[in-house]
Amino acid sequence: MEAEHEPDTRLEEELTEEELEAEQLSELIEAFETGKPGEVLENLDAYHPADAADLLEQLPRSVLSETAELLGEQFPTEILLELRDEYREIVVDNLPDAAISEAVNSLDSDDAALILEDLAEDRQSAILENMEIRDREELERVLAFDEESAGRLMQRDFLAAPEFWTVGQAVDHARANAEDLPDVFFEIYIIDPAFRVVGAVPLHKIMRTPRSVPLGQIAEEIEVEIGPDMDQEEVAYLFQKYDLTSAPVVDESGRLTGMVTIDDVVDVIQEENREDLLALSGVSSAGGFDTVVSSFRSRAPWLLINVFTAFIASGVISMFSATIDSYVALAVLMPVVVALGGNAGSQTLAVSVRGIAERELSGSAARRAIVRELLTAIINGIVFSAAVAVIAFFWFADVRLSLVIAIAMIGTFLWAGLSGILIPLGLQRLGADPAVSSSVFLLTTVDIVGFLSFLGLATLLLL
Amino acid sequence: MEAEHEPDTRLEEELTEEELEAEQLSELIEAFETGKPGEVLENLDAYHPADAADLLEQLPRSVLSETAELLGEQFPTEILLELRDEYREIVVDNLPDAAISEAVNSLDSDDAALILEDLAEDRQSAILENMEIRDREELERVLAFDEESAGRLMQRDFLAAPEFWTVGQAVDHARANAEDLPDVFFEIYIIDPAFRVVGAVPLHKIMRTPRSVPLGQIAEEIEVEIGPDMDQEEVAYLFQKYDLTSAPVVDESGRLTGMVTIDDVVDVIQEENREDLLALSGVSSAGGFDTVVSSFRSRAPWLLINVFTAFIASGVISMFSATIDSYVALAVLMPVVVALGGNAGSQTLAVSVRGIAERELSGSAARRAIVRELLTAIINGIVFSAAVAVIAFFWFADVRLSLVIAIAMIGTFLWAGLSGILIPLGLQRLGADPAVSSSVFLLTTVDIVGFLSFLGLATLLLL
Repeated sequence: MEAEHEPDTRLEEELTEEELEAEQLSELIEAFETGKPGEVLENLDAYHPADAADLLEQLPRSVLSETAELLGEQFPTEILLELRDEYREIVVDNLPDAAISEAVNSLDSDDAALILEDLAEDRQSAILENMEIRDREELERVLAFDEESAGRLMQRDFLAAPEFWTVGQAVDHARANAEDLPDVFFEIYIIDPAFRVVGAVPLHKIMRTPRSVPLGQIAEEIEVEIGPDMDQEEVAYLFQKYDLTSAPVVDESGRLTGMVTIDDVVDVIQEENREDLLALSGVSSAGGFDTVVSSFRSRAPWLLINVFTAFIASGVISMFSATIDSYVALAVLMPVVVALGGNAGSQTLAVSVRGIAERELSGSAARRAIVRELLTAIINGIVFSAAVAVIAFFWFADVRLSLVIAIAMIGTFLWAGLSGILIPLGLQRLGADPAVSSSVFLLTTVDIVGFLSFLGLATLLLL
Repeated sequence: MEAEHEPDTRLEEELTEEELEAEQLSELIEAFETGKPGEVLENLDAYHPADAADLLEQLPRSVLSETAELLGEQFPTEILLELRDEYREIVVDNLPDAAISEAVNSLDSDDAALILEDLAEDRQSAILENMEIRDREELERVLAFDEESAGRLMQRDFLAAPEFWTVGQAVDHARANAEDLPDVFFEIYIIDPAFRVVGAVPLHKIMRTPRSVPLGQIAEEIEVEIGPDMDQEEVAYLFQKYDLTSAPVVDESGRLTGMVTIDDVVDVIQEENREDLLALSGVSSAGGFDTVVSSFRSRAPWLLINVFTAFIASGVISMFSATIDSYVALAVLMPVVVALGGNAGSQTLAVSVRGIAERELSGSAARRAIVRELLTAIINGIVFSAAVAVIAFFWFADVRLSLVIAIAMIGTFLWAGLSGILIPLGLQRLGADPAVSSSVFLLTTVDIVGFLSFLGLATLLLL
């Protein structure tokens, strides 16, 4: 369907895309309703695995489970890998052990671990026991690493060669051992006799170098040492900083044990970004197939804490009931103080959390950032407290009231700015995630400082 | 320096890292103070360009400008590319035209554009005029693309071959034309006689395939069509979805015109994530070298809007001054209603914005998400309004007051949940960024609904 009017193009295209998606979905459901695995497979085969996974994720939860049951061992492994975690768990729960064994056997170790880690422990060991001893031991080693570590992220297949090999020898070796090579790789690691990595040759260098040149001559230095216990966030940071597409993983004795590739790292980057953004808003986890129950669970903890912190703020207000009784304008204006203060604090918090995530706030940079936030808070405090004081004056025609709100606001902005940078930096020092729980600390203390300073000053100056 | 006590390892290491950084920085400043370009260069050469850039970013702004002036044409281009935008601008502003011309000449077109785009227009054209006509035309074409488009992201060098070439021919061609190849590449594009891309052969496939095999036989399908006008966010999404390391860019007639590589896409992913996180907290931009002035500028707009929205909420409260005058407990409790409602709304907003960014909320998924948020809001509303009502009852021993706050809170939660998903989805429909300005809409309306329902109900039921 072509767009007929220029201005509507965007809208019509979007409609078409949605319609297309709906059509694809109903075709898939139709195929499922025939009850024939062949029909479903034929339907899914028409798509790229990533698109087929997207389509399956659109199915109602029960249909997805039943589709997994229907396909059983025929469920395409490529699609299984492309599904998001929550959806993959649903499918894996409904596949027979034999199907999982088969999938796990055919995969690189990092992908196999991805599927096995979703399983209940007894099922996992049952499947592992039925594997060949060598494969099983390898997988057990991978699964022994922490779930967010380089050891989990890495794959155990790689191409390595001694530095005296020539380009030609390396290529001939790869051709002769094509079966043992990893599915995807970007560089050849140069190892010494003790299997320690001494360099890497990117494949594009192999392409442009004559066969007779020894690898040692064109090898690039290894910029980063990744140990299997390194946190995946650190791995992602190093990949970004040094523009890596893959990196060797070495054990304590310096021996090459695996490699991490950029496709897995991109997923980590997205995951860490998602966690930061949600944590800053008080959500502990979320996903597309989120049921109402999981939505409730991921949000209730912070709301519960907030019930108590909100009552602390109420307690502060109640200390000044008598003042409010005499000046009801105070009740009208007090939300302005904490709303603006809270926003200024949230702004600082977001900048700080992002700065820490991007490693921009260490050492002298942190000290500079604290000074900068302090000055910004002073300027914002002066500018916006003046604006608020003027509006309040036009409304209530009370100079003292305007003065009270102006002073209270400057104080609140200062507190908000300082806690917006000091809370996340402090959490980081303590080894905690600077995004988690910093909002609740910040907003609670801003409320307390805001109400206390505004109503306290009013009690002193207005009564 | 080795850590001596087990328990202190982390802290000592961190200290050491900071001390090391401080030492490196003072050495660099010392080298700068000699006034000899050679000393500075020698100091910088000791680091990886990415680390040297990090170090330069730690310098006071004035010292960085003067270092750029001192080094002039000797300023290392690799370091220039690794600097963050704000810092690169400072350096470029202080480099002579000749230095920039030289840097631009030696770079791939995407990197050259990165440097030129920072320049004032007259300076940019002066430098372009001094370039060779072919290079100039190429750069002007790149600069003509939108700053956040695939055209800017792509580089114009790539390796392409017809499908009937064998692996051996491709390798021989690459070796013979090593000079013309891009600095980094991951695949060979297969083109037809009209220069249209019909497939791609990843380099690791070249490695494992015998010389005699024709490229057409091992070529992979091109999963995505990237046009030079495609938004970089869309490019990043496609790279993630299909696990790409590079992708061809084709013009309207389908001709291959360039390629985008994963290292540039990772930067885009980080940039888009940063924008989302900051926008959700009302910050329009931020960076490490942020001066107080730029901090103020990036945050003032939302605070200014917030001044007005806060007074709208105040206006709502003032409508009920008489009620508050009779029941001062209302002033004490009203912040609880809007604080919890605001949090519940922010949670939904964060989940929705992230869902949209990850393309999880289209078509039927959006409808399902709306229903889910509605149900979650009802459950959260019931649970937390009950908790608040009970606490309020123990405090004020007034059943009617508890009833009023409970009903008001359920209403506020419903509003917060619905607007938390409908506002970003609506902004997206309108073609706007769902993260920008959605917080201010949400929190303002939640305040209004919260105060209106709580104080309104109180007026009806308590007076």
